[in-house]
Amino acid sequence: MYYQFCEIVTEYNITMQNIEISESRIADDIDRIAACTESDPTVGYSRPTFSPAWKEARDYVVGEAERAGCVVKIDPAGNVHARPGTLGWDKPAWLCGSHLDSVPSGGKFDGVVGVVAALEIIRANRDAELELVIFAEEEGTTFGIAMLGSRIWAGTVGADRIRSLKNRDGVDFASAGKTFGVVPERISREGFGFPFERYRGLIEVHVEQGAGLWKQGTPVAVVTAVNGRRQYVCRTSGVPNHAGSTGMADRFDALAGAAQIVLGLESLGHELNGLAGNATLTVGGLTITPNAINVIPGNADLLVDFRASSNDALQAGDRRIRQLVASVGEKRGLGTEIDCFEDLPALPLDPGVCEKLHHAASSMRLSLPDVSSGALHDTAILAPYLPAALLFVASRDGISHNPNEYSRTGDIATAARIVAAAIS
Amino acid sequence: MYYQFCEIVTEYNITMQNIEISESRIADDIDRIAACTESDPTVGYSRPTFSPAWKEARDYVVGEAERAGCVVKIDPAGNVHARPGTLGWDKPAWLCGSHLDSVPSGGKFDGVVGVVAALEIIRANRDAELELVIFAEEEGTTFGIAMLGSRIWAGTVGADRIRSLKNRDGVDFASAGKTFGVVPERISREGFGFPFERYRGLIEVHVEQGAGLWKQGTPVAVVTAVNGRRQYVCRTSGVPNHAGSTGMADRFDALAGAAQIVLGLESLGHELNGLAGNATLTVGGLTITPNAINVIPGNADLLVDFRASSNDALQAGDRRIRQLVASVGEKRGLGTEIDCFEDLPALPLDPGVCEKLHHAASSMRLSLPDVSSGALHDTAILAPYLPAALLFVASRDGISHNPNEYSRTGDIATAARIVAAAIS
Repeated sequence: MYYQFCEIVTEYNITMQNIEISESRIADDIDRIAACTESDPTVGYSRPTFSPAWKEARDYVVGEAERAGCVVKIDPAGNVHARPGTLGWDKPAWLCGSHLDSVPSGGKFDGVVGVVAALEIIRANRDAELELVIFAEEEGTTFGIAMLGSRIWAGTVGADRIRSLKNRDGVDFASAGKTFGVVPERISREGFGFPFERYRGLIEVHVEQGAGLWKQGTPVAVVTAVNGRRQYVCRTSGVPNHAGSTGMADRFDALAGAAQIVLGLESLGHELNGLAGNATLTVGGLTITPNAINVIPGNADLLVDFRASSNDALQAGDRRIRQLVASVGEKRGLGTEIDCFEDLPALPLDPGVCEKLHHAASSMRLSLPDVSSGALHDTAILAPYLPAALLFVASRDGISHNPNEYSRTGDIATAARIVAAAIS
Repeated sequence: MYYQFCEIVTEYNITMQNIEISESRIADDIDRIAACTESDPTVGYSRPTFSPAWKEARDYVVGEAERAGCVVKIDPAGNVHARPGTLGWDKPAWLCGSHLDSVPSGGKFDGVVGVVAALEIIRANRDAELELVIFAEEEGTTFGIAMLGSRIWAGTVGADRIRSLKNRDGVDFASAGKTFGVVPERISREGFGFPFERYRGLIEVHVEQGAGLWKQGTPVAVVTAVNGRRQYVCRTSGVPNHAGSTGMADRFDALAGAAQIVLGLESLGHELNGLAGNATLTVGGLTITPNAINVIPGNADLLVDFRASSNDALQAGDRRIRQLVASVGEKRGLGTEIDCFEDLPALPLDPGVCEKLHHAASSMRLSLPDVSSGALHDTAILAPYLPAALLFVASRDGISHNPNEYSRTGDIATAARIVAAAIS
C-alpha cells in the first residue's frame, strides 16, 4: 500500500565535521528564511505553500543540509526529506522537522524553528540518525486544510478531497505543486501512505504559540498529549421586540442569554483548566438576528471550541457546557439548542519518546515540564503511526501568527541539544 | 409658509344620529381593515403605504366617515382628514387619529386602533369637534423613514430628502403617492407645513406595544412623555489569538468583554427603570471579528439603544453607561471606545391635554396611570407645534409588529370614550 520511497533530487557526499549546536547559526538560519517572504517584513512574513518565497526558503534549507553532507529527496506530497549521507535511506532514523509555509503576515518562528533545529542537529553531528523533514502546507491557509503535506503522506486524506483543494487562483494542490516536487499521479491514488516502519520515531520542535512557558520563565517543555477538541453550535432563541416599547422586565433577549453563556463558559474554562491542565474554552463566533439597534435580539448563534488533554476531561466538560446552556435558557425563558459537530479525541503522545526527552534534558541538568498542546501540528497527524512527541519552545507573550512572534535563539538551541541527546 | 389647506375630495351632508361608542362597531372596523391586506392573514397583515391594500383600508374608513356625515380631504402629503360636516374646516377642532399602513406581516391593531377610535367618536357624536386624521407611512417600512406623512405635513423634512425616499420598486414618495392624493409640486416646496393654529390639540390612541399595562391589568394609560433616545456604537478591542494554544489566563477576549458589557447594561437598564420609569437599555447589535470558531475574538462592536422619559435620566444613564464600558476595559485589559451618534431629547407631552384625559377618565370612575412612550409615534412629530398627548391601550404580552398582536375591543372603546369626554 505504501508508495515506493522516493525520488532522489540531489545527493551529495558527506562532509565530515564535528561541531556543536550553534546559536548563531540558528539565528542566521531564521533570518535567512525570514528574508524569503512575499510581503514587506514590516507587516510580517508570508510564505504560502508553492510560492516563490516558500521555494526560496526550502532551497535555502536544502542547500544547508547538502552542505552538511545530506542527501535530499522530495516525496510525492511535496514534503522534503534530508538524511546524512552516512545513514542511507533504509536504516531506521528519527524523523525531525516541521514546516516553512506561513500564514499571511505571520512571524519568523512558527514552523521554522523545528526545521532549523533539525538542520542544526545534522550540522552538529553528521552521523546523527535523523531525517530532517519539511512538511508542505501545514498552515492550511493556501489550500484550506491544515497539515496537508503530512496528511497526504500519512494517507489520511482521500484522492477526491485532494483534488478538490484549490488555492486562491483556483489551482488544485497537485497541479500547483508539480514544479515543487509533487507527483500528481502518485498522490491521486487511494492508500498513499508513508513508510512508518522506517522510523524510530518522530520529534518535532515547535514554538508554543501560548504564553504559558514564557510567563513561567521555562525555555522548553515536553508535550505529552495533543488536546482533544469538541466544537459546538449553540443557539439561544428569545422574542425579537421593540427596544423602546418593551419594558426591561418583559424581555426575552437572546443576546443577554448568549452573553451569560459566554461569561459562564469563560469561568468554566478557567475551572476545567485548573482541573485538567491546558483546557481551553472559547466562544469564537457569535451572530445575532435581527442585529438592529432598535430591536431586542431574537436569536443568537454561538460557535464554541473546547479543548482538553484527556477524554475524561472532554466528557466532563461537555456535560458542564450543556448544563450551563440549559440553565441560562431556563432562567431567562429562552429556547436553547446545542449541537456538538466535531469530536476529536485527545491524543496521548508516546511515553517512551517523552521519557527520552526528559532523560536527555536531565543529563543537561534541565527539568522540563510536561504540557499538552492546544493546537494541532504535523505530529498529531503522524502520532497514530509511530512513536512521537513534541518539544515546545517558549513564545514571548504567547503571540503567534503575527510579525511580533518571538522565541529566544538560546531556547531553540536548548531544544535542539535535547533532541540531539535524546536520539543519540 | 403654511400651505393652503386643502383639496376637497368629497363632501357629504351630515346624517344626524345620536349614538354611543359601540364595541361591536369597533370590532367590525378592525376586522374590515384587517381584511385589506397584501399577505395571507395567517402570516400577518401587510398594508404598505400606497399599496392597493392600504388604499382599500383607507377607502373603508373614508366611506364610514362620510356615512357618519363627515367631509373628507387629503392633504398634499397624502394624509386623510375627515371632519363632521357641521364643524367646517375653519373652526378649531381636536386632531385625532393614527395610521393604517403596517409593517410587513404585522398585526391588526397597530395604528388601526387610533383611526377606528376617532371614527367611532364621530359616529357616536356627529357634532364632535374632532378631525379624524390618517397619517401616511408611519411605519417607515415602505419609504425608509418613519412617520413620514406627519413629518412632511409638519414641514420637518426637506424637499431634497423627500425626493430621495424610494420604495422597493425605486419609485419616490411623491410619484408613488400621486394617485393617492399626494401633490408632488406642493410637497417639493420648502417650508411646507401644517396649519397648527386651526387645532385645539392632538390626541392619538395607540396600542402600547409593550407588556406593562397588560401585566398590570390596566386597560388604558395617559402618555405624558415620549422617551428621549441616545444611541451608541461601542467597541471592545482585545488580541485575536489561537483558541487552542492560548491559555485561559493569557487572553484578551473582546467578546468576553462585550458579554460583560451586555449583562452590565441589562442590569443598569433595570436599575434606571426603577429610578426613572420606562427607561430601556438594549444591545440590539453585536458583531465580532474575526468571528471564527478557533480564534479568540479580537474586536466586538456593539450597538446600544438607551431611552428614558427625562433628560436628567438620559444624562445620568449616559454617565453610567460610559463608566461601565471603561471599567470592563480596565479590568480585562481591553481597549474600549464608545460614541453617542444619536441624541434625541425626551419630549414632554402637554400637561393640559393629559389633565383633560385624566379628568375625563375620572368622570367614568377610571383612574389612569401616567406612562412614557418608549416608541415614537406621529404625536411625537406634531407635539412641538400643538398641545398633544397619547392614550395607550394595553397590548397582550406586549407583542407588536406580529400577527399575534392583540388588544381588547373593550379597552379600545374605553379609550374612545375617554377621548370623546375629554374633547367635549
